[in-house]
Amino acid sequence: MVIGGGTGVFNVLNSLRNDFDDLTAIVTMADDGGSTGILREEFGMLPPGDIRRALIALSGSDNKMLAELFSYRFEEGSGLTGHNFGNLLITALHRMTGDFEKAIREAGKILRIKGEVIPVTLQSSRLMAELESGQIIQGETNIDIPNHDGHLRIKRVWLKPAAEINPSARRAILDADLVIIGPGDLYTSIIPNLLVSGVGEALKKTKAKVAYFVNVMTKFGETHGFSASDFVHNLHLHLDGEILDFVVLNSNKPSAGRLRSYIKERAEFVEPDVKNMKIGKKTVPLAVDLIRSRGYVRHDPEKVLRVVKMII
Amino acid sequence: MVIGGGTGVFNVLNSLRNDFDDLTAIVTMADDGGSTGILREEFGMLPPGDIRRALIALSGSDNKMLAELFSYRFEEGSGLTGHNFGNLLITALHRMTGDFEKAIREAGKILRIKGEVIPVTLQSSRLMAELESGQIIQGETNIDIPNHDGHLRIKRVWLKPAAEINPSARRAILDADLVIIGPGDLYTSIIPNLLVSGVGEALKKTKAKVAYFVNVMTKFGETHGFSASDFVHNLHLHLDGEILDFVVLNSNKPSAGRLRSYIKERAEFVEPDVKNMKIGKKTVPLAVDLIRSRGYVRHDPEKVLRVVKMII
Repeated sequence: MVIGGGTGVFNVLNSLRNDFDDLTAIVTMADDGGSTGILREEFGMLPPGDIRRALIALSGSDNKMLAELFSYRFEEGSGLTGHNFGNLLITALHRMTGDFEKAIREAGKILRIKGEVIPVTLQSSRLMAELESGQIIQGETNIDIPNHDGHLRIKRVWLKPAAEINPSARRAILDADLVIIGPGDLYTSIIPNLLVSGVGEALKKTKAKVAYFVNVMTKFGETHGFSASDFVHNLHLHLDGEILDFVVLNSNKPSAGRLRSYIKERAEFVEPDVKNMKIGKKTVPLAVDLIRSRGYVRHDPEKVLRVVKMII
Repeated sequence: MVIGGGTGVFNVLNSLRNDFDDLTAIVTMADDGGSTGILREEFGMLPPGDIRRALIALSGSDNKMLAELFSYRFEEGSGLTGHNFGNLLITALHRMTGDFEKAIREAGKILRIKGEVIPVTLQSSRLMAELESGQIIQGETNIDIPNHDGHLRIKRVWLKPAAEINPSARRAILDADLVIIGPGDLYTSIIPNLLVSGVGEALKKTKAKVAYFVNVMTKFGETHGFSASDFVHNLHLHLDGEILDFVVLNSNKPSAGRLRSYIKERAEFVEPDVKNMKIGKKTVPLAVDLIRSRGYVRHDPEKVLRVVKMII
């Protein structure tokens, strides 16, 4: 079972889908940019973008064209440019059924997904952030693609208005045997799930092991200058007590050459500073090689799978 | 095997799909209205509307929601209102594959259709009409939903520019054992297929039996005041020689009560005047009860199926 939106999580889902039958993706409802933002506004619906990405990650590989179609973005047409086909599909199903969760299930049937995709809440709210300078940022997209000084740290984030946990999400967390948090953008993909009222309590109650996968690279405007212990510390600020059983972090520092391509986007390697980590006795830090051996510095599906099999 | 766009043809397809494995719908490319018209213009593509309707008619019934989704029309959204979801799906697949026929096959896979849907031509052209008054009408939609005096007869229709037959359509006609023409709007759904260069020749060459299903009701602006012999006569004007093996017409005149609801749209019962029909010796006129026993005066799927089984 997996929590959290963002590319990292979808990669994890994808790497687990052949080996586990009962994957559940719990997806944040904080996204408000691009095609998703327009549909949110004009259709008064919950954001479809992260749902779509989770569905694709869990989709069967027997029809690649279908997964590609879900990801397709219109580049022409007066009213269509920028809209994502999968988003339109979820929107149409939502209008037809009048039920966001049912629309997701029907989209899942079309994609023949393995597992389940569940919105963390069924209530619409906006992600807000306060920077250490005191500046308030409104909306997930404005945090994710910063107009603010990206060197500044985020002091706190919250949902406006507050949102309650979706009962299906609560049930999924309670019934899980493993909850994976991350990897993904800390403030815009991971923490927005934890801000939903009831998620913390469910994570506390569940008998599932809870593992947090720390990101391998920082993100300018969100986690600039973060080491692994900064990730863990800031996640903990949004967790009620000692919930983590495992902190899984990458110990393999890529070559300067591989990191060079990240200079432009001002992303840096996340140092695996286990010694600085303030974690309880029950939490096991696992510092292992998690990244691909070449190319982009990302979690390697095989290596993630190996860790998951070990801790489950 | 079936030729021609329009609701009538899709009903025929639907009524045959359980009993025949090798149905092929050859679909006119003359549509230029509504969502289809906008997509034609903005994406420079062939019209998806009739393709979509044929796909739905041939789709498996195991996922009703999927067929409904293909028919769904957006009613909100600044850029989406009026667009049909199935049209957007075909458009996206067309953009992804760069190949209209491939896009149709992929859409057919998603809908798990039984049979094949083939555009009569792969060339883009417009349907033109000259009324008996000499007035020229441009575009299928302007003929279909008339702004002109609907009492006037259409003198002739043509494609501008001329279009060549799609090789797959030619092959399908040559390989068929039965070609069904109609029912459907004579000038906007049936004849536009016959105007495509090469269709007449293929119909002449094929060893298939060719059956023309005459409409059961007239249409104001297109076939106002037509009896069955008028339909056959005007179809013949666009056929090169004696191609029809059967003319199938409805002999059951519905009650005045059932016809009353058609007064508003100025549609009338098509009189089965077999005696006026100028048909060759080889053509067999079949005047039988073809309509539903109640409600809208339409071809009854069961009765159509019975006739098709008889003549094949």
